[in-house]
Amino acid sequence: MSGSGTLFGIGLGPGDPELITLKALRLLRAAPVVAAFAKQGRTGQALGIAGPHLLPEQRILRLEYPFTTEVSIHDPRYARDMSDFYDQAAAAVARHLDAGEDVAVICEGDPFLYGSYMYLHDRLSHRFPARVVPGISGMSGCWTQADTPITHGDDVLTVIPGTLPEDAMVSHLSRTDAAVFMKVGRNLPRIRTALIRAGLLERAILVERGTMEGAHVARLADWPEDRTAPYFTIVLVPGRQGVR
Amino acid sequence: MSGSGTLFGIGLGPGDPELITLKALRLLRAAPVVAAFAKQGRTGQALGIAGPHLLPEQRILRLEYPFTTEVSIHDPRYARDMSDFYDQAAAAVARHLDAGEDVAVICEGDPFLYGSYMYLHDRLSHRFPARVVPGISGMSGCWTQADTPITHGDDVLTVIPGTLPEDAMVSHLSRTDAAVFMKVGRNLPRIRTALIRAGLLERAILVERGTMEGAHVARLADWPEDRTAPYFTIVLVPGRQGVR
Ligand SMILES: C[S@@+](CC[C@H](N)C(=O)[O-])C[C@H]1O[C@@H](n2cnc3c(N)ncnc32)[C@H](O)[C@@H]1O
Ligand SMILES: C[S@@+](CC[C@H](N)C(=O)[O-])C[C@H]1O[C@@H](n2cnc3c(N)ncnc32)[C@H](O)[C@@H]1O
Repeated sequence: MSGSGTLFGIGLGPGDPELITLKALRLLRAAPVVAAFAKQGRTGQALGIAGPHLLPEQRILRLEYPFTTEVSIHDPRYARDMSDFYDQAAAAVARHLDAGEDVAVICEGDPFLYGSYMYLHDRLSHRFPARVVPGISGMSGCWTQADTPITHGDDVLTVIPGTLPEDAMVSHLSRTDAAVFMKVGRNLPRIRTALIRAGLLERAILVERGTMEGAHVARLADWPEDRTAPYFTIVLVPGRQGVR
Repeated sequence: MSGSGTLFGIGLGPGDPELITLKALRLLRAAPVVAAFAKQGRTGQALGIAGPHLLPEQRILRLEYPFTTEVSIHDPRYARDMSDFYDQAAAAVARHLDAGEDVAVICEGDPFLYGSYMYLHDRLSHRFPARVVPGISGMSGCWTQADTPITHGDDVLTVIPGTLPEDAMVSHLSRTDAAVFMKVGRNLPRIRTALIRAGLLERAILVERGTMEGAHVARLADWPEDRTAPYFTIVLVPGRQGVR
């Protein structure tokens, strides 16, 4: 009887394929099956980063999101559909693990920081051996791309999802030294208004596709109000940089 | 006339030498001079991580902190002494850069997240070409070591230096979903009291030396009240892990 396979959650870092760790590379290449979340018809960010490192004999298991923009994330159907989707994705991964094959689930950034991998980990880590390899987060990639230290000394840093209501954003901004907005995309107009209300627009920096091909850094104050931002965008408010 | 050298700030990750990136390794090995902050008489964390990767011909420039525990960080002399120290460290690095030699300043974790490298970057990046390589942060290493997703969905994450006053800690804790305490060490008793006041002691996890040799994970509630924690300790409060 052969045992079951091991589940690996492998952080690939923020985008530059050279920002993968030695450990991630070793475990990625040792896995017969490489699984990745992706939108239908797209390469998927993680597969893009891992691409240059994969070996021809490795099999790819695409875990395709069931919809893209049709159902709003505030619609109750969204949570139910996503939960069903993660159940199915976990089942697809489990079939390989049951057959004794290791599966490397590749993740952009760090798997345990707002990563979809967590939904597989929550469902499978009590049934199969599971091991996570941390990665450089998207936010680290972005403040490095912007050449901006984010926190000095005793600065407090608050990481705020762009999906939050505007008042909640203003409240968090008023109590922190440094801030990072994740999941910017279509939430950019609300983030901008919250920053204006908190008196922080002048300090805010927008980073598109940090460390990836086509990366772009701009002062948010210079960003045209009607210009949207892509999914891979982070807005940074660097800390006080006080005592030097 | 040969040009001046380039300053590299190289993030080495949280401790496991295999958690260094391909880019950090390439740039680290290409530098004739490798500089690192360290306490007198100690190897220094960054030199410990880089050790297995260094080549015999590379020269080490130790930037030794002038004191360890004699002057309290609340004493005004502390800020002045540290500022003088960083001036001298920057001058020592600049001598090599002026001589046309690249200098790789190695940093534990991510250089721009509470890293000492920033004090060199602030002093030198307008005079010399400077380039930073992000690293996996200590906090990513710690939540991975604890096998604990830190944020799901629209959780807010607050990173709180352990040097803050207790009331400020309680106030931040009461407004966030997930929290990370950095710089724990001798601040552990105050952090514990703040967590108790915020009703979060039961959720708090202490991680000593995440991903390093001798790493240790414990529920903070199980940690003896009179037991101190080493410098490389982080306390985590994972987020709501609500919608699955
Ligand atoms: C679902 S979260 C995943 C975060 C990821 N696990 C990490 O550690 O960065 C996706 C969000 O991360 C941010 N992000 C991740 N990588 C990025 C990059 N390289 N540049 C800009 N934003 C990035 C964007 O805000 C995006 O909407
Ligand atoms: C001056 S800060 C430097 C942070 C570093 N630049 C980073 O990105 O993690 C030092 C603090 O980081 C935390 N830390 C860094 N690495 C750690 C590790 N591997 N395990 C536990 N704590 C760590 C500790 O709280 C320590 O007091």
